[in-house]
Amino acid sequence: MTGLDDLPLRDDLRGRVPYGAPQLDVAVRLNTNENSYPVPEPVVEAIAKAVAAELRDLNRYPDRDALALRADLADYLGHGLGVPNVWAANGSNEVQQQLLQAFGGPGRTALGFTPAYSMHPLLALGTGTGWRDGRRGADFGLTAADAAAQVREHRPDVVILCSPNNPTGTALGLDVVTAVLAEAPGMVLVDEAYAEFARPGTPSALSLLPGHPRLVVTRTMSKAFGFAGGRLGYLAADPAVVDAVQLVRLPYHLSALTQAAARAALAHRDALLATVEVVKTSRDRIVAELRARGHAVADSDANFVLFSVPGDQRTAWQTLLDRGVLVRDVGLPGWLRVTAGTPAETDAFLAAMEPLR
Amino acid sequence: MTGLDDLPLRDDLRGRVPYGAPQLDVAVRLNTNENSYPVPEPVVEAIAKAVAAELRDLNRYPDRDALALRADLADYLGHGLGVPNVWAANGSNEVQQQLLQAFGGPGRTALGFTPAYSMHPLLALGTGTGWRDGRRGADFGLTAADAAAQVREHRPDVVILCSPNNPTGTALGLDVVTAVLAEAPGMVLVDEAYAEFARPGTPSALSLLPGHPRLVVTRTMSKAFGFAGGRLGYLAADPAVVDAVQLVRLPYHLSALTQAAARAALAHRDALLATVEVVKTSRDRIVAELRARGHAVADSDANFVLFSVPGDQRTAWQTLLDRGVLVRDVGLPGWLRVTAGTPAETDAFLAAMEPLR
Repeated sequence: MTGLDDLPLRDDLRGRVPYGAPQLDVAVRLNTNENSYPVPEPVVEAIAKAVAAELRDLNRYPDRDALALRADLADYLGHGLGVPNVWAANGSNEVQQQLLQAFGGPGRTALGFTPAYSMHPLLALGTGTGWRDGRRGADFGLTAADAAAQVREHRPDVVILCSPNNPTGTALGLDVVTAVLAEAPGMVLVDEAYAEFARPGTPSALSLLPGHPRLVVTRTMSKAFGFAGGRLGYLAADPAVVDAVQLVRLPYHLSALTQAAARAALAHRDALLATVEVVKTSRDRIVAELRARGHAVADSDANFVLFSVPGDQRTAWQTLLDRGVLVRDVGLPGWLRVTAGTPAETDAFLAAMEPLR
Repeated sequence: MTGLDDLPLRDDLRGRVPYGAPQLDVAVRLNTNENSYPVPEPVVEAIAKAVAAELRDLNRYPDRDALALRADLADYLGHGLGVPNVWAANGSNEVQQQLLQAFGGPGRTALGFTPAYSMHPLLALGTGTGWRDGRRGADFGLTAADAAAQVREHRPDVVILCSPNNPTGTALGLDVVTAVLAEAPGMVLVDEAYAEFARPGTPSALSLLPGHPRLVVTRTMSKAFGFAGGRLGYLAADPAVVDAVQLVRLPYHLSALTQAAARAALAHRDALLATVEVVKTSRDRIVAELRARGHAVADSDANFVLFSVPGDQRTAWQTLLDRGVLVRDVGLPGWLRVTAGTPAETDAFLAAMEPLR
């Protein structure tokens, strides 16, 4: 029997395991920051109709440039953005991979500030981009001065910021983005996958796009839109950035079904985004309740909460799983991450947490 | 206004243009080797139903491992293959990109035999894999001895064969694949995107998989299945190869809609593949008629034909376009490629060719 070791795999991939949280069949799944609310019936019907209209012509390749979808995404983002500013792919992972292929790659480096979204270093690995692990403060914070100093130290070709940050949940001030832009010799990516859940008054880096052609903001429909199964990520940037990713994108990367389904979802965004406020209420309740119980809890602008547990977090993770609640062990000793879902899921999680006081 | 030159783009991407044939609105589109037949109504209904069943739960991520789809693909391929032998992605471009990420990449090389599918060197570029341009004979043929000699010369980490070859249309003998496997120090990919159109008696490299863990056969549903808009490519190989690509695949790369739609299409494969014989008849008619008119024509096992034209092929391409027929200029001086479509499209193409005798 042939094993991985018998194949001429790249050396830097040897001994690794595929990325991904366990997909377990548990009553309360709060481990991948999905939106807990199913797609509302009127939106299901609208998407079904939009997709059905594409099926007869599925023998033809889709619009390679996804122009109509990009127009809808630009309209959703506002900020004076148009089709030339927006690009879309199968999840923001693919968008970020394309950005690293265009601006990173062999002989180049990317800097992120750990802990952040754990796919960022894996995307660097997959694109042959050297990875630099930046530091955060003891409270997982990142100041403008500290971020700028680390950019100065590493001189990376790509800086990846994550705001609100996964897994900590806290948004960055725009002063951090501005300081990094001023210092960075290359591109600056701000991963705003969770932007729609930010607390009031939290600005988006979208507002910094004018005059900053090396800034790219990535977004996703997986979280607030409840469209994780549809796989649609996108970016907003200067049109030259969109020109650049088109040099590395795979032709016809976005299926006709994806384009149609995402457009229908965007047309019904009020219905889909109606769950955001409920989720934010669950999140704020988790933060307040866990703090009241004595846990350390990071401020959250996302649909999840990072909290401390007594003892080994792997034991705590299993305790919660044994009680029917699946959360995420992100590999931070003493911490776990829980997705904010429905009020009932929040009840279940908080009840399951009782032994972990 | 910012241009591409103002961005810190990778040096090896500078001056390039995005891959892709013109997407023109022409009566007879025979330029991208699509299946000219729309999806039959019963299959449209089946796909619509399958997709609709996924929509309510689109808030959840799809099956990351696409197990059910892979089982269906293995069943379609036969050859004793099972789920562990099969992997799927958004088009065979993405499958091949993943293979180059796992087995090519920085410091490694890939060898192809030009002219072949023009995305192969671009996938190498996008993954930082060095590209080696192998040669074909004057008639676009490739013998076992010649292929093996070139592998011996270049010692590539990945060899990419294309059978039936795009843009020439001719399938390789298995002796070529066997000779390359014997000589190659690394992986051997056989791109069989057009396998279903091969002339009777043309074997698939699938039959060589047992005992060859470094062999990978890639396929697509874009051509024979008429599923180009659905974006589904796949591979068959030793299970260790599937383990390898999972180290570089993006998590949840295949949407729930793609998985459901492809499964429904596979369930109705008899209806979808019913067009293959008609297309082959059109192809054989094009080959015979153009040869009768004195054109040089490559043998075709695909749904397209490569043929010589008098004078500059760019002028001939425009002549055909002016007469309402869009074919492909693949950059081979004196040659053009036409997709075999419906009998009516074949009539239109052959009529448009009259001035090019």
